[in-house]
Amino acid sequence: MTYQEVLESAKTCIGPYCKACKECNGKACKSQMPGPGAKGVGDTAIRNYEKWKEIRVQMDTLYENKQIDTTCNFFGKEFRYPFFAGPVGAVNLHYGEKYDDMSYNKVLVSACSKAGIAAFTGDGTNPEVVRCAAKAIGEENGAGIPTIKPWNFATIEEKMELVHEAGAFAVAMDVDAAGLPFLKNMEPPAGSKTVEELKEIAELAKVPFIVKGVMTAKGARKAKEAGAAAIVVSNHGGRVLDSCLATAEVLEEIVAEVNGSMKVLVDGGIRCGTDVFKALALGADGVLICRPFVTAVYGGGEEGVKLYIEKIGTELKDTMAMCGATNLGEITKDMVRVPADWR
Amino acid sequence: MTYQEVLESAKTCIGPYCKACKECNGKACKSQMPGPGAKGVGDTAIRNYEKWKEIRVQMDTLYENKQIDTTCNFFGKEFRYPFFAGPVGAVNLHYGEKYDDMSYNKVLVSACSKAGIAAFTGDGTNPEVVRCAAKAIGEENGAGIPTIKPWNFATIEEKMELVHEAGAFAVAMDVDAAGLPFLKNMEPPAGSKTVEELKEIAELAKVPFIVKGVMTAKGARKAKEAGAAAIVVSNHGGRVLDSCLATAEVLEEIVAEVNGSMKVLVDGGIRCGTDVFKALALGADGVLICRPFVTAVYGGGEEGVKLYIEKIGTELKDTMAMCGATNLGEITKDMVRVPADWR
Amino acid sequence: MTYQEVLESAKTCIGPYCKACKECNGKACKSQMPGPGAKGVGDTAIRNYEKWKEIRVQMDTLYENKQIDTTCNFFGKEFRYPFFAGPVGAVNLHYGEKYDDMSYNKVLVSACSKAGIAAFTGDGTNPEVVRCAAKAIGEENGAGIPTIKPWNFATIEEKMELVHEAGAFAVAMDVDAAGLPFLKNMEPPAGSKTVEELKEIAELAKVPFIVKGVMTAKGARKAKEAGAAAIVVSNHGGRVLDSCLATAEVLEEIVAEVNGSMKVLVDGGIRCGTDVFKALALGADGVLICRPFVTAVYGGGEEGVKLYIEKIGTELKDTMAMCGATNLGEITKDMVRVPADWR
Amino acid sequence: MTYQEVLESAKTCIGPYCKACKECNGKACKSQMPGPGAKGVGDTAIRNYEKWKEIRVQMDTLYENKQIDTTCNFFGKEFRYPFFAGPVGAVNLHYGEKYDDMSYNKVLVSACSKAGIAAFTGDGTNPEVVRCAAKAIGEENGAGIPTIKPWNFATIEEKMELVHEAGAFAVAMDVDAAGLPFLKNMEPPAGSKTVEELKEIAELAKVPFIVKGVMTAKGARKAKEAGAAAIVVSNHGGRVLDSCLATAEVLEEIVAEVNGSMKVLVDGGIRCGTDVFKALALGADGVLICRPFVTAVYGGGEEGVKLYIEKIGTELKDTMAMCGATNLGEITKDMVRVPADWR
Repeated sequence: MTYQEVLESAKTCIGPYCKACKECNGKACKSQMPGPGAKGVGDTAIRNYEKWKEIRVQMDTLYENKQIDTTCNFFGKEFRYPFFAGPVGAVNLHYGEKYDDMSYNKVLVSACSKAGIAAFTGDGTNPEVVRCAAKAIGEENGAGIPTIKPWNFATIEEKMELVHEAGAFAVAMDVDAAGLPFLKNMEPPAGSKTVEELKEIAELAKVPFIVKGVMTAKGARKAKEAGAAAIVVSNHGGRVLDSCLATAEVLEEIVAEVNGSMKVLVDGGIRCGTDVFKALALGADGVLICRPFVTAVYGGGEEGVKLYIEKIGTELKDTMAMCGATNLGEITKDMVRVPADWR
Repeated sequence: MTYQEVLESAKTCIGPYCKACKECNGKACKSQMPGPGAKGVGDTAIRNYEKWKEIRVQMDTLYENKQIDTTCNFFGKEFRYPFFAGPVGAVNLHYGEKYDDMSYNKVLVSACSKAGIAAFTGDGTNPEVVRCAAKAIGEENGAGIPTIKPWNFATIEEKMELVHEAGAFAVAMDVDAAGLPFLKNMEPPAGSKTVEELKEIAELAKVPFIVKGVMTAKGARKAKEAGAAAIVVSNHGGRVLDSCLATAEVLEEIVAEVNGSMKVLVDGGIRCGTDVFKALALGADGVLICRPFVTAVYGGGEEGVKLYIEKIGTELKDTMAMCGATNLGEITKDMVRVPADWR
Repeated sequence: MTYQEVLESAKTCIGPYCKACKECNGKACKSQMPGPGAKGVGDTAIRNYEKWKEIRVQMDTLYENKQIDTTCNFFGKEFRYPFFAGPVGAVNLHYGEKYDDMSYNKVLVSACSKAGIAAFTGDGTNPEVVRCAAKAIGEENGAGIPTIKPWNFATIEEKMELVHEAGAFAVAMDVDAAGLPFLKNMEPPAGSKTVEELKEIAELAKVPFIVKGVMTAKGARKAKEAGAAAIVVSNHGGRVLDSCLATAEVLEEIVAEVNGSMKVLVDGGIRCGTDVFKALALGADGVLICRPFVTAVYGGGEEGVKLYIEKIGTELKDTMAMCGATNLGEITKDMVRVPADWR
Repeated sequence: MTYQEVLESAKTCIGPYCKACKECNGKACKSQMPGPGAKGVGDTAIRNYEKWKEIRVQMDTLYENKQIDTTCNFFGKEFRYPFFAGPVGAVNLHYGEKYDDMSYNKVLVSACSKAGIAAFTGDGTNPEVVRCAAKAIGEENGAGIPTIKPWNFATIEEKMELVHEAGAFAVAMDVDAAGLPFLKNMEPPAGSKTVEELKEIAELAKVPFIVKGVMTAKGARKAKEAGAAAIVVSNHGGRVLDSCLATAEVLEEIVAEVNGSMKVLVDGGIRCGTDVFKALALGADGVLICRPFVTAVYGGGEEGVKLYIEKIGTELKDTMAMCGATNLGEITKDMVRVPADWR
């Protein structure tokens, strides 16, 4: 099987909304929900994609010829590549009945772990989602990151139990899910969190706690205060708020604010190894890739995931080789150029 | 009925020019008049729409979870939302025979008032237009804003009488209508006004006087000198002058000039709650939305208006919740980002 | 007859290249020659058009209501409007057999003069072209501007004789025609001129001498040194050199260089009265409009020209009225805004 | 035969990937490989083309009328024009079976030499490619530039022998080929080179050594240290790395860094004489044009090459004449304008 075949196969089973496009750029699905589309006018997902393309790489092949090393370490765990599979929820609703969140996460967590990276798993109103995800992560010796929604405290407490049983090496909360209807209607209320509330949650986590959904330097500062070990610069793929800035646009200023005090991850429109390289050159420690993992699972199951990881990994190595970085630490800001009209 | 159905229904009765587009962005109607099109090349209406989209919002969900409060006060009157229905004239000519200005304004004023906001009504060569609008406003205890064209003084005087009888809480003049042919041919001449003339009119108004059609800091200063209680930053939806700047582009510098001395409203291409949020973040006190209210009335009558108001109001609340503003006063400039190449 | 009918009629007789487009923007004819297309890739004509559209006008209707006065004076002669019909050559080749240069210029010169403006006439390899143009100008008491190509001195001398006989109030030379093949092959060589050569020609002219085809401040300085009374900022509609800047882009810096020492005219893509207003706001004393006069003549003869002049004149008046300028002298730089990324 | 006929003829035989487009701009072939397409998303070839178009020329025809002289000297050899045919490899694979590298280079080297310019020849895994290219160059008395890939030292040594036998006046290495799969798998490893390694190679070259594939000031400095006589600013037409900057964008800063210490050539999207002029105005000493020479050879053989050279040469002369440069030394920076948002 080739990655091209994975995509072709995905087209046959991925439901009516996602088109398993060659370039997963938010255009064919634009403002459709359900489906992978973005909220409102739907241009945030497109902007996420396009802003990475506006960043250009600086080729330089005059350096010592060595093997390219893409290994990295997050919270004491070694990975082959500095990218993760992102969390996705309600896959049956948005991508078709071939998978539900339980079966999807099982395939994803296992395939990622075997290929030397880790998957973030999603969360849902059905408690089985996190339970099953935790189980899958447990079977891979904790090599996966459960993502918990910003529920009320009691609910979070329950879900954290599952995380601990699984031995997950880290846990995330997608705080930008605050606006989702099923959270707003909870009693006691769920959704947005103060720094103090987030601190309690971080303590509850015990393992490194990752705050996903930070788009401002101020937000990063608050996550730090709350004791986060990492943040994910993310606008939830454009699905929670219309008219956001692209993640690529705000990455640098957030990296500057964090200044090494936490790990900084980023997602949104990252679609090839060159995009991963660009994120690292702007100061990210790693990235999350989301939707293409869905097409990989739907189109090829565990093999699809493996092929996609190899594709991205190879592209990252290629880009490093062409820019003169032989390991991740050698990727520097001057290897990319952002447009002059970004701030 | 859903808002989607309102739009579908509007398509069946809204005449040949307006297409009741999902995105009301000035493109399908471009340079057509009659119809909702803009003047000349017709790119001002499109620019109005697009410049709001170029402004991006800054998501931040780390704050205390509270009910979102969108209430506001204009000239002593409480409103549920900081947006108004804008004035439209000659609806039968531009949007089809289902309504005339009299029946249109009646539906609009009543539905807006019941939904907790207020409508601006339009003006026309037929004296019945303002008379009927005033009547409709009177029936809603003054909860509507008659808009008077810049006629000659005697005509304005007559119309102001109707405003007073209706007990309207404020009155507006769309001074940018100065170039319309039927004003130019009046005797004595009507159209543009000096500060002195505008001051006389403002005094005649007795209630707070709103100058609509200001696009420069200088124009705002003149409106202030004339005693205006508020201005509307507006280019008349692109219908009175080709090649204008978008209202979004000039809003900030006008807000800076006004510096709190008058209320500042803005219209032109505002099509969703996120656009309302952006206008407020740039310093506007409120906004006017015009054309979508026409499709709402044509497609759903009073119910259509109600649905549209709920749609926009909900989007505004959502945006506030996702940016960390729990009331209108908490919406700040740093919650949006304008492109670097705007001045 | 309406101007719309003139355009429709032109479509039936204007040959295969020009499409008599509603928006004459250089796109339908792009890189075609013969025909009105531009040289090379053909994007200079398009850029000329588009850069005017990027300049935006600043509406302000708070001023004293007066008649709008568009009259102006060039070299002692009064005109109704600050625009001229531009010179065109080989009309039969480029626009179809309905006219040749002789019959075209006759219609154009007469109709322009009667409507209160003046036409520039073109030049060609056939000596009859200038002879007939001079005759037409003579019949209008000199109200026309013959344009002479940069031939060798003897040829220029002959043509100047005709200008003097006609009593033309001014004469122009399109120095940017230097690259045309029929000039390069002349003996003695024709084409580019030194300041000294141009000075001799200017002296020969006796009447005010207009240098057409200046695109740089340096070029303007040289024209001034040579004794020119005016320059036309022009890139020959994109027909003599690929990849030029638009005339709108260089106008301001040339106006600054000239600093009132000569009249500054500009052409290239000016298609409506708002464009004329913009050119004047950037410091031009007047403008030339070229291709639309061809469609006006082909589609409506003298009446077509008259209608087109009224159309542009009315649009100019409208724009002035909406920006608060009641005569040409009141049109100021702050009434327009150029994009921030122009220099 | 006309150049138009050459293109038409090429369409009939140039294989399925290249479309022999009128504008060779990287769009029709975008991300296809094999074929002339670029790597990854494929936008680098398009960007190369478009960035030249964003640079605009400054017309000025007020100067002394003289013959335009385009001759130049590289490493003691006189050429008619400051452009070279670029190296291409695996033409049968990418452009169709009508030619292989051996027959292609033979036609190209001979036709270029006869027309007064020189061709770069390509390299391949088949040792016959360089052997035949060297033979063709030898037959033209050394008027051609063999391009050697960055193999391991032993392989380079062998190929240099052939260069010396041919008496080539210069030799190039496309160091940006470092990432190609067949180099990565060599034993001992080939690909990227340190300055020290490159210095050894430059010494081996004996004739002036040209480093092709430099995109940064730092890379230029390293080439200089290694003893290069010239560099080619090139991203290999977008074929070795996705998301590169365009060569036009980095040319000026590299010219500034080199500061006359080496010759600077540039390629990538240069498609007309005006583009050549722009490159020279930004400080390049000469340019390479690649793909259009392939269509010229496929469509017209030696005559096709001759016609293409005349076309480009004539366009260059035209541009010089219209900007007031009568020889290459008179082409200055102020004759072009780059967009304000380039750095």
